[in-house]
Amino acid sequence: MPLKAVGSDVDGTLTVRRGDLRVSVHAIRGIRLLESRGVKVILVSGNSLPVTAGLSVYLGSSGPVVAENGCVIMYRGQIYHVCSGRPPEGLLRKLQDLGLRPSWQNEFRYHDMAFFMPRGVDENSKAELLRAVSEIAEAHGLRVLWSGYAVHINPGNGKGEGLLRALELIGVSASEAAAIGDGENDLDMLSVVPISGCPGDAAPAVKVKVKFVARGRGGAGFLEFARWLLAKGERN
Amino acid sequence: MPLKAVGSDVDGTLTVRRGDLRVSVHAIRGIRLLESRGVKVILVSGNSLPVTAGLSVYLGSSGPVVAENGCVIMYRGQIYHVCSGRPPEGLLRKLQDLGLRPSWQNEFRYHDMAFFMPRGVDENSKAELLRAVSEIAEAHGLRVLWSGYAVHINPGNGKGEGLLRALELIGVSASEAAAIGDGENDLDMLSVVPISGCPGDAAPAVKVKVKFVARGRGGAGFLEFARWLLAKGERN
Repeated sequence: MPLKAVGSDVDGTLTVRRGDLRVSVHAIRGIRLLESRGVKVILVSGNSLPVTAGLSVYLGSSGPVVAENGCVIMYRGQIYHVCSGRPPEGLLRKLQDLGLRPSWQNEFRYHDMAFFMPRGVDENSKAELLRAVSEIAEAHGLRVLWSGYAVHINPGNGKGEGLLRALELIGVSASEAAAIGDGENDLDMLSVVPISGCPGDAAPAVKVKVKFVARGRGGAGFLEFARWLLAKGERN
Repeated sequence: MPLKAVGSDVDGTLTVRRGDLRVSVHAIRGIRLLESRGVKVILVSGNSLPVTAGLSVYLGSSGPVVAENGCVIMYRGQIYHVCSGRPPEGLLRKLQDLGLRPSWQNEFRYHDMAFFMPRGVDENSKAELLRAVSEIAEAHGLRVLWSGYAVHINPGNGKGEGLLRALELIGVSASEAAAIGDGENDLDMLSVVPISGCPGDAAPAVKVKVKFVARGRGGAGFLEFARWLLAKGERN
């Protein structure tokens, strides 16, 4: 099957490395390389729609944009809602009572709401907080996604469903697509396509699931993946 | 005076060239170079706040973010409104009747609304449309700004006031700042600081007003300006 589209996570995958949100110039090269070979890049992010769609314009990716961990898509100026509804205010207040800090992007979100961990908490306390958040959210029938940066309260089925809907919009089947991501919230997206990859500094749970583990971190890993995909296409 | 901050337009200034919205890797280098020398970069854009603030995170600029042509600022997660109100619905409908297409970002804007020209109009028709839009807007006491990409209906005083307010927020005086832009909507911002620059492919009206005209286009010109500013600082 010829490769027609690549779904890509943003934070930790197109950035300098996991934990650094500055975009990588290698990732930009990788995106433009794929696009110049006719492969559409689809950003699939936990960010809000305007942040993800704006980034897509500036990075030069031509595929649809999937935001809010799969909940909302933009393509050619049209907005498509994959999820419906949003977490109730009472739930969001409970999270703030636990010390979680709402993302400034929540004002621009439709469905998936994001929170940062309290400042200065250690890994143990983080894990404990995540468990507490999951309990609260699950009581409301909502999922909790941890991106490595933010806790997301998500009323949908995650990035995988978002990517499949985006592929549908451009008439590409999942068998003609690949995907790359670094976080646990990318796992379901990585499992809906036949070819998956991750940067060298991805979460361990991601590294064991993907076909291609890059040597470089973050966006350097994305560029490796892009080159590997194109070389693979030439061999076939 | 030591240089402490640089206000920068985005479209046409940090992008590959005027008319190409893909971000320039040279511009990214320029931003990170300034930041590594302790000079805060302040994005000053006609884009919506979430698009500009998201871009600032990914580009790695640490100054406040000025969006909507000076109407709204974000710094450390706080939003500051420089303008008040927004263009009335009747006015926006009139523009659509003229064939102008609303930007997808309008849904995420507070004050300044943006429209694209109808597809396939020539330069003469564009100028005529701009005159018609100005007449309608001025009847409502609103300004019209043309960025080279979009027509903005702006209820404020433009980018200059936005940049000054942003500098205030970080305790930097205008005399310690520089600015760079390529479009006519950047002129007032370029005039509120002692040192101004533009890329080599800036609008002619901008080229005649600034101190430094770069040779390179777009973001390559931004990198030249950044290096020139830092070398100038060392000479003084």
